[in-house]
Amino acid sequence: MNHPSIIGASIPRLDGRAKVTGRAIYTDDIKAPGMLFGALLRSPIPHGRIKRIDVSKARALAGVKDVIVGADTPQIKYGNWRLVPASQDELPLAVDKVRFVGDEVAAVAAVSSDIAQRALELIEVEYEELPAIYSVEEATAEGAPLIHEESQGNVSLVRKIEYGDLEEWFAKADLILEDEFKVHAVSHAYLEPCSSLAVPDEGGRVTLYTSTQTPYIVQCLLAHTLGIPENYVRVMKTQVGGGFGGKMELRPWEFSASFMALRTGLPVKFTLNRAEELSYGRRRHPMSIYSKVGFSKDGKLLAKDFQVMLDGGAYNAMGPTATFLCGTFGNMLYNFPAYRYYGRHVYTNKPPASAMRGFGAPQAAFANETQLNLAAEKLGIDPIEIRLINAMQTGDVIPDVATVSSCGFKECLEKVREISGWDAKRQAKTPNKGLGVGCFSFISGGVFNWFDTKYNFSAAEVKVFDDGTAQLASMACDIGQGTDTVLRQILAAELGISIEKIRLIAMDTAATPKADLGSWGSRVTLMNGNAVIQAARKIKDMLVPVLFSQFDLNQIHDVAFEGDEVFVKANPKKRMSFAECVYKALRGRRGEPLSAYGYYTPRDKGLVSPAFSFGAQVAEVSVDEDTGLVTVDQMYTAHDCGVAINKMAVEGQLEGAIQMGLGYTLSEQFVMREGHTLNNTFLDYKMPTAEDMPPSVYAEVETYEPEGPFGAKEAGEGLAIPTAPAIAHGVFEATGFRCRKLPITPERLLRGMGKLR
Amino acid sequence: MNHPSIIGASIPRLDGRAKVTGRAIYTDDIKAPGMLFGALLRSPIPHGRIKRIDVSKARALAGVKDVIVGADTPQIKYGNWRLVPASQDELPLAVDKVRFVGDEVAAVAAVSSDIAQRALELIEVEYEELPAIYSVEEATAEGAPLIHEESQGNVSLVRKIEYGDLEEWFAKADLILEDEFKVHAVSHAYLEPCSSLAVPDEGGRVTLYTSTQTPYIVQCLLAHTLGIPENYVRVMKTQVGGGFGGKMELRPWEFSASFMALRTGLPVKFTLNRAEELSYGRRRHPMSIYSKVGFSKDGKLLAKDFQVMLDGGAYNAMGPTATFLCGTFGNMLYNFPAYRYYGRHVYTNKPPASAMRGFGAPQAAFANETQLNLAAEKLGIDPIEIRLINAMQTGDVIPDVATVSSCGFKECLEKVREISGWDAKRQAKTPNKGLGVGCFSFISGGVFNWFDTKYNFSAAEVKVFDDGTAQLASMACDIGQGTDTVLRQILAAELGISIEKIRLIAMDTAATPKADLGSWGSRVTLMNGNAVIQAARKIKDMLVPVLFSQFDLNQIHDVAFEGDEVFVKANPKKRMSFAECVYKALRGRRGEPLSAYGYYTPRDKGLVSPAFSFGAQVAEVSVDEDTGLVTVDQMYTAHDCGVAINKMAVEGQLEGAIQMGLGYTLSEQFVMREGHTLNNTFLDYKMPTAEDMPPSVYAEVETYEPEGPFGAKEAGEGLAIPTAPAIAHGVFEATGFRCRKLPITPERLLRGMGKLR
Repeated sequence: MNHPSIIGASIPRLDGRAKVTGRAIYTDDIKAPGMLFGALLRSPIPHGRIKRIDVSKARALAGVKDVIVGADTPQIKYGNWRLVPASQDELPLAVDKVRFVGDEVAAVAAVSSDIAQRALELIEVEYEELPAIYSVEEATAEGAPLIHEESQGNVSLVRKIEYGDLEEWFAKADLILEDEFKVHAVSHAYLEPCSSLAVPDEGGRVTLYTSTQTPYIVQCLLAHTLGIPENYVRVMKTQVGGGFGGKMELRPWEFSASFMALRTGLPVKFTLNRAEELSYGRRRHPMSIYSKVGFSKDGKLLAKDFQVMLDGGAYNAMGPTATFLCGTFGNMLYNFPAYRYYGRHVYTNKPPASAMRGFGAPQAAFANETQLNLAAEKLGIDPIEIRLINAMQTGDVIPDVATVSSCGFKECLEKVREISGWDAKRQAKTPNKGLGVGCFSFISGGVFNWFDTKYNFSAAEVKVFDDGTAQLASMACDIGQGTDTVLRQILAAELGISIEKIRLIAMDTAATPKADLGSWGSRVTLMNGNAVIQAARKIKDMLVPVLFSQFDLNQIHDVAFEGDEVFVKANPKKRMSFAECVYKALRGRRGEPLSAYGYYTPRDKGLVSPAFSFGAQVAEVSVDEDTGLVTVDQMYTAHDCGVAINKMAVEGQLEGAIQMGLGYTLSEQFVMREGHTLNNTFLDYKMPTAEDMPPSVYAEVETYEPEGPFGAKEAGEGLAIPTAPAIAHGVFEATGFRCRKLPITPERLLRGMGKLR
Repeated sequence: MNHPSIIGASIPRLDGRAKVTGRAIYTDDIKAPGMLFGALLRSPIPHGRIKRIDVSKARALAGVKDVIVGADTPQIKYGNWRLVPASQDELPLAVDKVRFVGDEVAAVAAVSSDIAQRALELIEVEYEELPAIYSVEEATAEGAPLIHEESQGNVSLVRKIEYGDLEEWFAKADLILEDEFKVHAVSHAYLEPCSSLAVPDEGGRVTLYTSTQTPYIVQCLLAHTLGIPENYVRVMKTQVGGGFGGKMELRPWEFSASFMALRTGLPVKFTLNRAEELSYGRRRHPMSIYSKVGFSKDGKLLAKDFQVMLDGGAYNAMGPTATFLCGTFGNMLYNFPAYRYYGRHVYTNKPPASAMRGFGAPQAAFANETQLNLAAEKLGIDPIEIRLINAMQTGDVIPDVATVSSCGFKECLEKVREISGWDAKRQAKTPNKGLGVGCFSFISGGVFNWFDTKYNFSAAEVKVFDDGTAQLASMACDIGQGTDTVLRQILAAELGISIEKIRLIAMDTAATPKADLGSWGSRVTLMNGNAVIQAARKIKDMLVPVLFSQFDLNQIHDVAFEGDEVFVKANPKKRMSFAECVYKALRGRRGEPLSAYGYYTPRDKGLVSPAFSFGAQVAEVSVDEDTGLVTVDQMYTAHDCGVAINKMAVEGQLEGAIQMGLGYTLSEQFVMREGHTLNNTFLDYKMPTAEDMPPSVYAEVETYEPEGPFGAKEAGEGLAIPTAPAIAHGVFEATGFRCRKLPITPERLLRGMGKLR
């Protein structure tokens, strides 16, 4: 395709300089006059009834301005799945019960952070302890205690998918595999701990500065829990130091800051520390997966029975979406005629799991991809070959989901085979070394409107000025993924102006156009990008008439916008600067500015996503047979994200994804005892560091996604999916041990290799 | 007229609570991370050449982050009269010459305010002193030194008005009066000293928080002086603690903060202190006025020759507008056939005078009204009667200016006569007591586009939401006059919703719609009010179809918006809540929000103003014949501001105007010696306090101004005009001394009464 040159350019993040020089302003950097400091009292037990709370001593402490418990609040339950009100199971502060170690019980606002902490110690809470549950197996066992009375068997949500005659296709299969997989929880470990500052406004309104991926969602749910109109809440985003799915819900400190700001008339700020984040924060869903697959002897996947229990922890959080998507990730990527998915979201007495980069896919893919490798082995087919046999292509249908409008999956497989030297290295069979492969497909934003917004899914406002500059306002949310740069590239391309000339207005639910559902599901580039383009095209419709008048053009002519100039395509000498064109248009409008709104909602795109990315990854691993330590020597990735708007940003996503995938596969886990997290520092929670990073080779497979802006689709999350199955497969090739449980710790590996008992 | 009940209601200011509890956030309250503190080095001499500046010692001081002098800057002149580029005579920092004591020569940014002050002391400046000029008479004398080389005779601008045959009408006159008047400078004395905080943005952009009446003007001029595109500057208004005309230009500290923020990459704040404000700040123009008037023996004004020299101080500032308007204020209010105005704006080596509440009118009115009282005396006509003889009425034409579309002046005269007990008290003739009258007319915003904006003069964006709330965004600027409340009343009235439900977005040149010229010339209620109404009507056009569809209405029907409900006028049972109507409209728009822009520019309204207020005031004064002290015992005011949107706000304007008028007439003045201001504290600068305030009776004379929102016109500045002539007239009635010079200090009065030599 012929794109403006800024599409596909490697433009360093426009906010990069401020971030690396420490000048970017995050929520905790903001100091409002008269500001109070908040602190949260959390449950020390995993499950229990609150018998009595006495806050009188805390209230009496000098410097304490407010203390609240659940009973002081409107006690309105909330949750992101507004479309299914029964799924809204959280209260900002616990009222009758606590359900995990860390459940918020009371909040304090004081003139200093120290005083707030001391006040917490003065709050007396008497609990009646209840039996606690730490696994989905216990939770769903006969007679298990109920964590939420309403949810029988501790299952809060079930999703089923079924098509094709499963029994018939299994009957036809030459090979049937039945496996169980267990994947664990890991932390988002975003660098910026959560911080929220609520400033009371005139008339019972409140402005909340908060580190969030979803300002619009926070606005709506905060207003709901406060019992005030939605538009009495204004949410303003400052810089966000990462989210990865962990900052996409209303959080108790957002409520408590706002509620106490309204009560005291003073600004209230909460900033969490790392220990709170690791001990009580959201995390990726552990899952127990049963998967039965059937293959023909020539490697065709015929049937899949996929049963998943998600360990949701104490509340639903984004669990319903993960439960929903996990089933969908079970039937993307490969074509097969019969599928049954049975997903259950299960409560346990642990910190709630929620969305995390990949949104159910890394877990599903670990099972799916590992089983493909198993089948390849059993059938004597090369693992890449078996994928090529089953791989989706453009125009294929994901049953009940969508028709895939662009797909470079087969090219990715070919490409990764080539760049990794797959065939030669497999032939060579070096001891203790192995090549493993993992593949993925991912959504470019969600269609199913679980938040039940009444607005378009994404919106943007573009203004242009006669100084040749433009302004882009949108509620889309750069949380570190670089969309503030990418969206400006899209606008620069559409208007043909320099990217430097575009000011971006940070999202602010009162000033940026309604609505945008936020940064999750890899939705921003495609959805907000399309909204930006629509707005820019409306602007161009106001500018084009200037040239027609000025140059007396026949109506068949067309006008180009390029290089900060506007000209007649068939006669480029007829041109003027963009600035002059805006000036003339402005004059013609008698003082009315040039501004336009643009919107995007996926329509006629099924219920899952308007577009799908694809990719394949090969991990080259070495195993130390004495220590059981796995080293990833090299990563090879081939990737179809449509047209990459910013190649550098895509490669940045890949680097980050490999780092997270490495941790997920090999080293990261929560060490828990009776509901308490024991490793809540970055010393004990083992994330890979820069030193652990393998070298990486990247191959772009460009397709053109017709639904995407300039042909783009997602690049943020899909890359986080293939690493675990690829490494696990590499470990099998090196050791002969097929790991069905993550992480592949040295202990687990040595046991698998029979070297430890 | 039949208005919605909120029009004319006395609604306390919606921002009042935050202000009186100290929680409102002014610019100086904002602390940006890493912020530097700025300080200005000012000229210690009234006129001179800069021979040498050495900032090396200042730069070397630990904690100093930047020091700038004129030569470091782009040296681009600026001024509000962009339409006349030659009038732009100011530089942010002096380059070759200094022209008044206080002229800005250098600026420092340091990590603390103390260090910044110490750094100032380390800057060495060598001046060549030049002869200085302190009065318009010296300045315009033959051979006077030139303050600006370009301005011959130190006159920077001349305005002439002439119509009718002056000689012929003077020849017809039975009475001719020739008088000279001298009026002096006074301070705006706003409670909040100027403060500006510049925060550097990505890509060479800057955000300026500043205490200003004119964010759009500051944006444009700041960008101009920085040499960057207009839209690289974002101006955000916080609360403003008064302006009165003194905060409507770009100021050197706004430039210096921004320029150093861009250089250092750090936020820079300047906050002036009271001594700086009083010593160097803008002030009301002193004027030397010659006025010759001719009357027929029955009291008809026939001709006026009005010659004014404005003492502009060192730069033009808003002097051109004052020079322009002063001539117009000479022929408003009364009808007469022949007029000549010759106004000259003159440079002197004093701090620049500029706009101040009344914008040339208090000075002109002091002469005009005093001469009317003189004529009444000479002709033996009652002073109110002579005004009634000449008073304008609706439909009268101010020659070359406008047709007056609403005028309650005669009713005001009748009313003030009645409420003051004028006839009886004049009959009674109490010793040392007197009743004096003064009248006024004032503009409701200006038409003449001296700022040369390409945009409409005023704009607003209205959004409505399905929670029944609305949002109003405009660049209009509440600087304490209460327009944030009044504009919401207008929107509440137009949409028929409760005012509490309307959020107002504080102006922000990047987020509120372009443009608004700011708060001056009493323009906000009429101009922005009309823009708000236009936007609201567009919203209603989107809502009305909902009722037509829902209730199957014949197209002749009309829909009413009242009480947070929407209903069919002819059948009010067919109704729904406003919220529901918005919800249904939103659904019908498939997710596109309901928002609309509205604009206003006066058209076909001449060159001065779209509407004129009128009023009359009677001051009842006592004079202590021994001390010369004047006490105002009671004020009576009758006032036509069209339909008062907020009666309480209008009365607040009156209270403030009386306070300022009292100070202007009796006690306030700058005591200056060789260009230095000696009384630069509130102890020495004698403003009337609450204890000095006379009781006041107010009578509203309601007219309906067809050009105004709901019939409203101005109420902010006109009321500041009549007090000086009314008190001076009262003093004459009490003492027989007719004062032609302000202020009427005890000393001046005792001399006038012959009691002091």
